[in-house]
Amino acid sequence: MKIGRQEHTHSAICGSNPETIVVRGRDLCGELVGRLGFSEYVWLLITGELPRPGQRAALDATLVAIAEHGLVPSVQASRMTLAAAPEALQGAVAAGILGCGSVVFGSTEAAGRFLDEVVTRSRATSPDEAAREVIARYRADHRPIPGYGHPLHRGGDPRSLRLLAVAEENGTSGEHIAAARSVERLLPELTGKQLAMNVSAAIPAVLLDAGYPLLALKGVPILARTAGLIAHLLEEQQRPIGFVMSHAAASAIGYDGPAPEGFVERES
Amino acid sequence: MKIGRQEHTHSAICGSNPETIVVRGRDLCGELVGRLGFSEYVWLLITGELPRPGQRAALDATLVAIAEHGLVPSVQASRMTLAAAPEALQGAVAAGILGCGSVVFGSTEAAGRFLDEVVTRSRATSPDEAAREVIARYRADHRPIPGYGHPLHRGGDPRSLRLLAVAEENGTSGEHIAAARSVERLLPELTGKQLAMNVSAAIPAVLLDAGYPLLALKGVPILARTAGLIAHLLEEQQRPIGFVMSHAAASAIGYDGPAPEGFVERES
Amino acid sequence: MKIGRQEHTHSAICGSNPETIVVRGRDLCGELVGRLGFSEYVWLLITGELPRPGQRAALDATLVAIAEHGLVPSVQASRMTLAAAPEALQGAVAAGILGCGSVVFGSTEAAGRFLDEVVTRSRATSPDEAAREVIARYRADHRPIPGYGHPLHRGGDPRSLRLLAVAEENGTSGEHIAAARSVERLLPELTGKQLAMNVSAAIPAVLLDAGYPLLALKGVPILARTAGLIAHLLEEQQRPIGFVMSHAAASAIGYDGPAPEGFVERES
Amino acid sequence: MKIGRQEHTHSAICGSNPETIVVRGRDLCGELVGRLGFSEYVWLLITGELPRPGQRAALDATLVAIAEHGLVPSVQASRMTLAAAPEALQGAVAAGILGCGSVVFGSTEAAGRFLDEVVTRSRATSPDEAAREVIARYRADHRPIPGYGHPLHRGGDPRSLRLLAVAEENGTSGEHIAAARSVERLLPELTGKQLAMNVSAAIPAVLLDAGYPLLALKGVPILARTAGLIAHLLEEQQRPIGFVMSHAAASAIGYDGPAPEGFVERES
Repeated sequence: MKIGRQEHTHSAICGSNPETIVVRGRDLCGELVGRLGFSEYVWLLITGELPRPGQRAALDATLVAIAEHGLVPSVQASRMTLAAAPEALQGAVAAGILGCGSVVFGSTEAAGRFLDEVVTRSRATSPDEAAREVIARYRADHRPIPGYGHPLHRGGDPRSLRLLAVAEENGTSGEHIAAARSVERLLPELTGKQLAMNVSAAIPAVLLDAGYPLLALKGVPILARTAGLIAHLLEEQQRPIGFVMSHAAASAIGYDGPAPEGFVERES
Repeated sequence: MKIGRQEHTHSAICGSNPETIVVRGRDLCGELVGRLGFSEYVWLLITGELPRPGQRAALDATLVAIAEHGLVPSVQASRMTLAAAPEALQGAVAAGILGCGSVVFGSTEAAGRFLDEVVTRSRATSPDEAAREVIARYRADHRPIPGYGHPLHRGGDPRSLRLLAVAEENGTSGEHIAAARSVERLLPELTGKQLAMNVSAAIPAVLLDAGYPLLALKGVPILARTAGLIAHLLEEQQRPIGFVMSHAAASAIGYDGPAPEGFVERES
Repeated sequence: MKIGRQEHTHSAICGSNPETIVVRGRDLCGELVGRLGFSEYVWLLITGELPRPGQRAALDATLVAIAEHGLVPSVQASRMTLAAAPEALQGAVAAGILGCGSVVFGSTEAAGRFLDEVVTRSRATSPDEAAREVIARYRADHRPIPGYGHPLHRGGDPRSLRLLAVAEENGTSGEHIAAARSVERLLPELTGKQLAMNVSAAIPAVLLDAGYPLLALKGVPILARTAGLIAHLLEEQQRPIGFVMSHAAASAIGYDGPAPEGFVERES
Repeated sequence: MKIGRQEHTHSAICGSNPETIVVRGRDLCGELVGRLGFSEYVWLLITGELPRPGQRAALDATLVAIAEHGLVPSVQASRMTLAAAPEALQGAVAAGILGCGSVVFGSTEAAGRFLDEVVTRSRATSPDEAAREVIARYRADHRPIPGYGHPLHRGGDPRSLRLLAVAEENGTSGEHIAAARSVERLLPELTGKQLAMNVSAAIPAVLLDAGYPLLALKGVPILARTAGLIAHLLEEQQRPIGFVMSHAAASAIGYDGPAPEGFVERES
């Protein structure tokens, strides 16, 4: 069954013959291996163009900022999966990536779309006016403003501040970062709450200003976290904690369903 | 239920408090974001140490060499999954990573173990003698020699040659590459077959010589391919081919099970 | 980091001690194994209650209707994954399940929500009026009416007709099926198109009428397809076609990116 | 690139045309939906034949026995994944299935192969002699005897005893169960340890005696657990505990890597 009406029959990423592998128009062995850093190659793969230095710096900084944050749920899921299925490292990585969803990293993408709307609108008016309009529209639709507020860092997420500084240093700071700052400035007045820009807004602001494509934003936390997962899975092979964590997690939860008379739950 | 007898209760990768995120002993915002390239950070995450320039070059070169090779099965699985479930980019990436298994990338790890055995043995004898012994043991156990031979590149996989050249240029070439070359030289005599070193032997040879840990070898193709998958999933959003490929794949396969009388299979 | 404000600390599904496993209030070994069919147990697990015969019939019929439909994209992804990673059957199943998304099976859940809205609204007015109102609202929001229309079966999906007949036979047909029929009757007038109820509307109509929970609807195609995937993965071990399909799929797609002068793409 | 030398170009599971879907030779809508229970259909899908009553009973009993066992690591991974990515139920199910690996369920398959070796060997000698020989071979190879011993149920896993009783009641008990009992009887003498048959040996013994295919054994725990996961994911939507478990798990693990002077880890 041919589902849908897909008309395309080409890909522009990689072509090859038995002698040559061409990636984005370049000979992989002759022009790329040994000449490009991995993050430059990532930029080339995704955009089709080699990055300028500021673009590479923006991608490196955002990848480094979010690759690792300790034993977050997705890392736990990954380490527990390796403990149960050590024959398949790829399965443990996949289990960890599956937690890069709308609650944990999705706001990166949502914030990217939000900032993009503000920037598009600001071309017909002032940045602040554009921010006001888009915020008002989100609030009318009962949608949260993605990328602002943080349970811990009320004074500002230090990773956000650092990422904006990197963009400044590298000369890529532009209208998305300006929009993100406008929003941060206006939110107290418009919502009555002090909501600092968090890393989920800073990442798309920095990347979109550098020319990274909106539709590939979610790939950045996924790629970054894959690196963190590999480090954790190496450690899990050497100093396993998957089942220790699982034991602690299970111990935090009781059974409150019905039970046969006389049944006493005990950790089994 | 506490499964197994895990005794460890610590991780040495990341610690944090509300002000600071420490990764491998360094302040993430103060020392790493904006100062390190992604591949340097990957090395730090995995090994706990910042890479020397040759180590970074080895990791960059291997990641670049295998991140992308066109519409291989795992890329197809990933693009078909996005076409069916566009709400979850992370699911499509996970589906692609699940194909980084023993047939497709597992020989990287298997070849790493094999070369490591040759190197360990060579410390008590000559490299060639060590290679002979380990090859003989594999053949006695009816195990294939991992990392040699290629369906296409009979004269030598161009990516292998390039990777070895990069190690040479960067001064990291050492005993694992020497072992890999010994094996290549001895195989015709020992097996009667000309089997050139392929990329699955070149990658671990280069990385192990640079000091990359054996148990994290499989992470390199997984991380590399994640980058390729993200590029393909961006393209799939813009020029979808997932269902076109699926249609072609299904058309190549007929139904040869039993059927009610008069039933004629037709593509539905 | 404690993400969000989760307050619950209990589960009501399963409790155990070293002698007894209690599931939904019943002793697993004493009351369930050997006494219940799998689909009855599935109903018990999900709802907390043993099914009445008509409920069991509804669940069996819907599971059987959608467990298998040949070499659809998710089955291809699963078989290709097993071919590449035969050491991890669980990874191949997971890759197949990841394709049970919004395009392929998500309309089951979307149609369930839609029919539920019609039923809720119909309690204050007539079923046809309720259907008119909810359809009008969807159209005003530019949302498609989920569960109607089929690329092939213009006269009606035979699986839908059969499922509704099973509900009739078992006496579970109720207001969700009535709503589904009202919608089918009204669509030509309201949209100008003849759109027959497809299996994505029939499944939730039958299950919701039987008392199956709305929030677990998507579990039905996922569980059903898992069974189909296991059959395909057994066949893939015995008569592998994963790479044959992949080869055909790749052959249907050309490279149209830039290339070095003189480069001729050839299947490699 | 055509990987490997796959020669098959057919599947015998499902064929269709726009009017009819044929599964294993039968008309899906005319002969199967509404007439077969799900477990009967699972047997048909996997084996190509409708099950006899004892076969169906064996499959039902084993599926019921292992579908659910509380907050085991794979259920935790699944619930944490849904908490982080609620938009993709399929991703949370996939994360849970990825934990059905060699440590947790793999012994089902390993025990099936082991019992199959004993049965094959017993055709040329007595069951006890065959068991002795195969056990001796495993021990010579330093391989564990899969399916015996349990951290809790030293007197015998109650699920094993119940499954063997079900096979007895349904008249499917045969040489694999006999082999499993021989092994249990001989192990104390041969290993010096009292090792009761656990559920990982009882499941393959019961299924293989009923005629279920060895290569699809691992599919049984995977299918069973999918049902348990769906129940947990429904509960996670209604009474979320994913992040509560994750918080408890993280709190059980400290950071023992290096840190900048003055850094004090605190839960963040």
